[in-house]
Amino acid sequence: MSATPVIEGIVETVLYTDDLPRAVTFYRDVLGLPPIAGDGVRFRALKVSGRQVLLLFRRGATSEPMAVPSGGTIPPHDGSGPHHLGFAITHDAYEPWLARLRAAGVAIESEAKWDRGGRSLYFRDPDGHMLELLTPGLWPNY
Amino acid sequence: MSATPVIEGIVETVLYTDDLPRAVTFYRDVLGLPPIAGDGVRFRALKVSGRQVLLLFRRGATSEPMAVPSGGTIPPHDGSGPHHLGFAITHDAYEPWLARLRAAGVAIESEAKWDRGGRSLYFRDPDGHMLELLTPGLWPNY
Repeated sequence: MSATPVIEGIVETVLYTDDLPRAVTFYRDVLGLPPIAGDGVRFRALKVSGRQVLLLFRRGATSEPMAVPSGGTIPPHDGSGPHHLGFAITHDAYEPWLARLRAAGVAIESEAKWDRGGRSLYFRDPDGHMLELLTPGLWPNY
Repeated sequence: MSATPVIEGIVETVLYTDDLPRAVTFYRDVLGLPPIAGDGVRFRALKVSGRQVLLLFRRGATSEPMAVPSGGTIPPHDGSGPHHLGFAITHDAYEPWLARLRAAGVAIESEAKWDRGGRSLYFRDPDGHMLELLTPGLWPNY
């Protein structure tokens, strides 16, 4: 008998984009996420932190199955937005992030405060995806 | 001068669903992710591991701005799929996960092997979102 298998975390979080180079530039230069893999045509993988990656897929480029050289197939997927995802930042980094986004010409769409003490900063990527920078004190586990 | 602010990780990964109770049941009972917050109507937050959450939003329920009781507003967002995300599992958990998914009646859509030694297991959630369980040895940082 095997022990109940467990999920260790989310490795791959995905967004679809209509302009892959534009999206890569935004996430690399504004949010500071380094590209670590990808062909630049179908997709680009950006390192987020530790072992997490943000996968940016060109919309429509993954709607057919794709063979993997080492064996097997990636099933089709695709999506339209405006999707949402949230990045962790420290409390001390909240004001510096506000300043950095403003300096980069990124409109701050909203800010919010949470019962547990956390704060959220909301803005859009070039595809209109709704991004959040959030400090600890929002969820029971964050 | 502040130091360059950094992203500490992805906290919130999002999927939209046409049937929130059905989606919660799948992620809780098949993937073992415990619900930790949410109203069950607009959204449910599931703990993934450590400080990560998977947010399941009822499609269409977040397409208007929403006031936060403690202050501020959550901007609108929404999305359609079949979206994709990938969960970390250990090498030792690969075969137990195969067995668990099959026992739960979940069709295995594909398996893949990667140059770095990792393996991926692909299947669908009840909304058709394309899920992946992946072992280390896929990305440069995983």
